Amino acid sequence: MSIREFRAAGVTLTVSEGGVPLAGREVTVAQRDHAFLFGCIGFDFVDLANGAGTEQDERMAELWLGLFNAVTLPFYWGGFEPERGRPDTARLLATARWFAERGRVVKGHPLAWHTVTADWLMDLPNEEIARVQVERIKREMTDFAGVIDMWDVINEVVIMPIFDKYDNGITRICREMGRIPMVRMVFDAAREANPRATLLLNDFDMSAAYECLIEGVLEAGIKIDVLGLQSHMHQGYWGEEKTLATIDRFARYGLPIHFTETTLLSGHLMPPEIVDLNDYQIPEWPTTPEGEARQADEVVRHYRTLLSHPSVKAMTYWGMTDGGWLGAPGGFVRADGTPKPSYEALHNLIKGEWWLPPTTMRTDGEGRIRFNGFLGAYEVTADGATAEFTVDAPGDVTVEAALTKP
Amino acid sequence: MSIREFRAAGVTLTVSEGGVPLAGREVTVAQRDHAFLFGCIGFDFVDLANGAGTEQDERMAELWLGLFNAVTLPFYWGGFEPERGRPDTARLLATARWFAERGRVVKGHPLAWHTVTADWLMDLPNEEIARVQVERIKREMTDFAGVIDMWDVINEVVIMPIFDKYDNGITRICREMGRIPMVRMVFDAAREANPRATLLLNDFDMSAAYECLIEGVLEAGIKIDVLGLQSHMHQGYWGEEKTLATIDRFARYGLPIHFTETTLLSGHLMPPEIVDLNDYQIPEWPTTPEGEARQADEVVRHYRTLLSHPSVKAMTYWGMTDGGWLGAPGGFVRADGTPKPSYEALHNLIKGEWWLPPTTMRTDGEGRIRFNGFLGAYEVTADGATAEFTVDAPGDVTVEAALTKP
Repeated sequence: MSIREFRAAGVTLTVSEGGVPLAGREVTVAQRDHAFLFGCIGFDFVDLANGAGTEQDERMAELWLGLFNAVTLPFYWGGFEPERGRPDTARLLATARWFAERGRVVKGHPLAWHTVTADWLMDLPNEEIARVQVERIKREMTDFAGVIDMWDVINEVVIMPIFDKYDNGITRICREMGRIPMVRMVFDAAREANPRATLLLNDFDMSAAYECLIEGVLEAGIKIDVLGLQSHMHQGYWGEEKTLATIDRFARYGLPIHFTETTLLSGHLMPPEIVDLNDYQIPEWPTTPEGEARQADEVVRHYRTLLSHPSVKAMTYWGMTDGGWLGAPGGFVRADGTPKPSYEALHNLIKGEWWLPPTTMRTDGEGRIRFNGFLGAYEVTADGATAEFTVDAPGDVTVEAALTKP
Repeated sequence: MSIREFRAAGVTLTVSEGGVPLAGREVTVAQRDHAFLFGCIGFDFVDLANGAGTEQDERMAELWLGLFNAVTLPFYWGGFEPERGRPDTARLLATARWFAERGRVVKGHPLAWHTVTADWLMDLPNEEIARVQVERIKREMTDFAGVIDMWDVINEVVIMPIFDKYDNGITRICREMGRIPMVRMVFDAAREANPRATLLLNDFDMSAAYECLIEGVLEAGIKIDVLGLQSHMHQGYWGEEKTLATIDRFARYGLPIHFTETTLLSGHLMPPEIVDLNDYQIPEWPTTPEGEARQADEVVRHYRTLLSHPSVKAMTYWGMTDGGWLGAPGGFVRADGTPKPSYEALHNLIKGEWWLPPTTMRTDGEGRIRFNGFLGAYEVTADGATAEFTVDAPGDVTVEAALTKP
């Protein structure tokens, strides 16, 4: 299936003003947003959103806002509440609002995970750990409701009870409870705290293990809204075939799929024998011209592949700027703030090939114009009067827009 | 924990005859069987059991019976019923009885599997495949009840719905139903057909995937009697640490564990890059002197490791004689019928270190003798009078034996 077939619509737009169709008039239509979530983490903008940004932050924000309509913000328990009872709520809420005010969909990541969790959990008995985990979920989801209504509720459950790199409170309770009761506990808490929220199960394990987990969770009657698939490709681009086969395996459950964490490098690849990516520690991991050309090509191929599958509704890139996780050159922007070819390549898709720029057309005798555009938000203007409208479904659709003067 | 601590007992045996304790008399105690199931496949003895054995078969049977007290017989659907409606019941029943008459515990393998399944299933719609799968289970379990009361009900569910080497009826229905409904269907059928039977879930996948599957199955309320773990080690012995860690992960569910399929080579190892062992096809795979020494060592280490874990109740070796699956030199006996060092080494454990040979002792004034023996079946004799007894529990136990003349 071609991407446009189910991601775009043939729109017949009837433009009116004061109840009268605007016949034979020049109007300008422009896309304002995509229905598809083109996301990226926004971890670097906490200072900026809290009034302590640098000039470099401002420039990076401009580049960020030029590409993305969705943001993932960090709620790692160990960072968010390093001291019990002193959560970083105010700063994160300001950050979330900064993005929300700019029309971005905000997601919190993650509410339960065994890595980067709070050390003080280990001072508690298991029963108490479970109780504060539930309370923590309810607290964050309540405090951020209306600003953040999308959450990675629990992360990497496949290995959660057998994670053995270091002791931590979450592995302890997951080992004791079992995976499915753990998922049930955190999803019940999340659903109760914010019934309107979109709740994700997220994992990096793309093997049959995640399938088995999902099937067990669904059989147990736990409602999952979205399946999150990570795709950190530090060891090389998956390619179209593997990507589509992976999506197909997880699309069988009839749930929307979000690619929640994607990385593609513009430097040398991590050796294939590394199993836990965190084990690869090198002093410097430079971006290279050849790497940047390869990355730009792979970014385009990967986004095209994801959009070609109807089940995929969102894609979050794991860091716009180099020097993030592992120091890997995985950004679309170099450490010095200059965009790589991948930035331009992706921009050419999101705001180019898949975007309707301001386009002037003449309405017919019944006030109609026709255009083809990606699902999303639009604006039509004529002589200083405007109307907003959305294109929600693919195929041939008819939409009405009643212009008003501002 | 030492093996004897929970696999053997300190027995105080009171011997009597005609209701009177046999005081101050010489009696001979001898072990007759192990409670632990030391199993092996018996695929090579179908002809012999059906009266068409060769002299070589007779010799192999003698070696086989010298080691093993449990047998696994083949019920691969494609071999058992290659033509719909003409199952190989009579020959397999004769084989099962041949082993049962010799006091061996007989297990059937497997009732549902996507590999070596019946090709004619592919001519049927999915609903019909599911129906005949259920009927097939009920037929075999009813026909063999009382002779075979232990079954690998379903094999390799982790990859069942995503198996893509070739089309087959079982993958089709598992993909449509999902893994857990598939397991429920076959276990319900098996339980109904023979409520006394011991029912196994069996897999080769020792990763978190099998854990996730098991947790989903148990959460769904499906009763599994025994977890089957395969351990074909064509690519090298796992070693004690990995073996114990694997058992620990699966022992968490509180179910007995059977090592259902074990292979250790006495020739060169399969290269590590082979993922599906069936892909390794070579014209000749010889046993070697160095390989045989290594195998004997590893066999002893592996059996000691399994017996050192209280959850493990059975171990089935995947072929006593070379030239079986993949032509690999995995047997304890060479293709020419001569035993390898591994045969003797294992015999020295099962019928040596872990065995009470006929042992003469003098009873005390109350007719008692004391000995330490592995859990299992025993016989005591005095002056041509005999009694059988079993040692069922570890620790200090008291047992009574009333001698009778034959």
